[in-house]
Amino acid sequence: MKIAFEELKAVIKKAFLKAGLTEEQAELCAQIHTESSADGVESHGANRVPRFVDYIHRGLIDLKGSPELLGAKGAVENYDGHLGIGICNAMFCADRAAALAKEHGIGCVALKNTTHWMRGGTYAWHMADMGLMGMCWTNTESCMPMWGSDALGVGNNPFCIAIPRENGPIVVDMAMSQYSYGKLGVYRLAGKQLPYPGGFDSDGNLTTDPGAIEKSMRILPTGYWKGTSLAIALDMAAMLMSNGIVASDMDQDKYGSCGGCSQIFIAYDPYLFGSKEEIQEKLDKRVEAADSTHPADPKHPVRCPGESTVARRKKSMAEGIHVDDDVWQQILALAE
Amino acid sequence: MKIAFEELKAVIKKAFLKAGLTEEQAELCAQIHTESSADGVESHGANRVPRFVDYIHRGLIDLKGSPELLGAKGAVENYDGHLGIGICNAMFCADRAAALAKEHGIGCVALKNTTHWMRGGTYAWHMADMGLMGMCWTNTESCMPMWGSDALGVGNNPFCIAIPRENGPIVVDMAMSQYSYGKLGVYRLAGKQLPYPGGFDSDGNLTTDPGAIEKSMRILPTGYWKGTSLAIALDMAAMLMSNGIVASDMDQDKYGSCGGCSQIFIAYDPYLFGSKEEIQEKLDKRVEAADSTHPADPKHPVRCPGESTVARRKKSMAEGIHVDDDVWQQILALAE
Repeated sequence: MKIAFEELKAVIKKAFLKAGLTEEQAELCAQIHTESSADGVESHGANRVPRFVDYIHRGLIDLKGSPELLGAKGAVENYDGHLGIGICNAMFCADRAAALAKEHGIGCVALKNTTHWMRGGTYAWHMADMGLMGMCWTNTESCMPMWGSDALGVGNNPFCIAIPRENGPIVVDMAMSQYSYGKLGVYRLAGKQLPYPGGFDSDGNLTTDPGAIEKSMRILPTGYWKGTSLAIALDMAAMLMSNGIVASDMDQDKYGSCGGCSQIFIAYDPYLFGSKEEIQEKLDKRVEAADSTHPADPKHPVRCPGESTVARRKKSMAEGIHVDDDVWQQILALAE
Repeated sequence: MKIAFEELKAVIKKAFLKAGLTEEQAELCAQIHTESSADGVESHGANRVPRFVDYIHRGLIDLKGSPELLGAKGAVENYDGHLGIGICNAMFCADRAAALAKEHGIGCVALKNTTHWMRGGTYAWHMADMGLMGMCWTNTESCMPMWGSDALGVGNNPFCIAIPRENGPIVVDMAMSQYSYGKLGVYRLAGKQLPYPGGFDSDGNLTTDPGAIEKSMRILPTGYWKGTSLAIALDMAAMLMSNGIVASDMDQDKYGSCGGCSQIFIAYDPYLFGSKEEIQEKLDKRVEAADSTHPADPKHPVRCPGESTVARRKKSMAEGIHVDDDVWQQILALAE
């Protein structure tokens, strides 16, 4: 079904207030979850509301936890998230990275001991909205085998880059698995095969059958060996930069998904060495050059990452946000 | 054939001196080309010597060009490479990023108007060798279609991360195309199919036939749509950070491959918030956890990126470096 932004946000906020969040926490978290659904990232938007509330009830998220400054040097700050709300911790750190970038050209915040930030792109978009180039990533528990392994060994560690652009930012929000388990479920329930192989079946053959991959748990890394190489480097980098923990420490499941993880936020002032006018013009020309390359299928023009999100958001604002019927009923129940 | 490190380096150095490099330039460049071959990255090691010399003769590389500081703010510096030797420019900037990191926690150097840096991993390894976490990337001319396009539109923009480790760094050096054209050529000449699809043929079908991809020029991005999304964001980020140019500016081919490109070097002090002992122990445990995950094929144990490079380097030092016979003859001729 389709629900207006303000209505969806209001109901989610009510559910969050009922779960014990403060007015300020509930406002921010409801806004972010609703935005993610509006942008078409339902898996980390409305769909995630029930699990978030469940994590609070299970004590996996500490509503009183907030970022504590542990150390700082020059352009870098290190925080302990105290297992507070992932969204609140991450937004705080993205803001701090931006402030550091304004002062030092580049700013970096290394957050440890936090919880699931939901959609990684949120913080990249946020940095771009503040007029900065942004980069952020998180480590996660193991959900994918290392290349050459048939057992879970590394997280999908989403990595995001945002390029601020007056005409709409260019944003990459990229997990290191080719498909998420959420996506596999969507295809399986629809009785569809994946458009490209998404993992190995239990016999070790590449397959487009989502159910076979859910069973083997041998989800495919983005670009085969490349995806797990980048994933494990990002895992170690997040730990090292924040003095936090790595996937193998999160795998006992006592924390829930991403509990105790580290997140890195890097912001960069885009107009250090060129004027805003000059840089923006060069960005526009680059996007135009990419978008005007010849499409393989004339019905599908080429687009840079982020452009279709802006279009989807506009559509959601005009026509309402798509929410799964069951999910909507669950959120309504949580808000009652 | 196999050639000892010092012999290979000496002959390459002689060729470079003959091409007009100074003693210092020739020493550094010969060292780096030889190291790349020793590490098994022949495509950007010995194999690249003739093309590098050709670029000098064609005036695409200015032997007198060296990094000029254009601007600086806090932890960031911006250089114009003046189309100097890519290796020399990049090594200088990696060193500067390291020095900035020592002072500000994080350091970033944005280099513009430089030339091909050969193997991107060189600078990541170098930062790790200096005890820092390193990240670097370059933009390149278009060599890959944007996702959904059948015409060249974006570079393969290699992205590197190095994690410093006493027991051997973990290093990712990852182009945004699944296979390089060099690799396609190797498979085609050997009459082999690629292990996984590497592009689309002229009819738009995914294929493992290297010749069909060389013909269509529809090389596959790493992780399908993900690879070109990350590639174009890295292209724009490199331009924006350095106030340089983008792929579409390099596509006129008047510059040769990567001529005029931008490169970004980010270094991070790994012991800002944890002691060296603590961080190194956590890194070792992480590598051990990954490497001990169950292998799909018991003959091929799981390894983290960089570990096999260290092994390959040791083998090259003990047994000599593999160099293609034709390439060796070409280098000998250039050195005469």
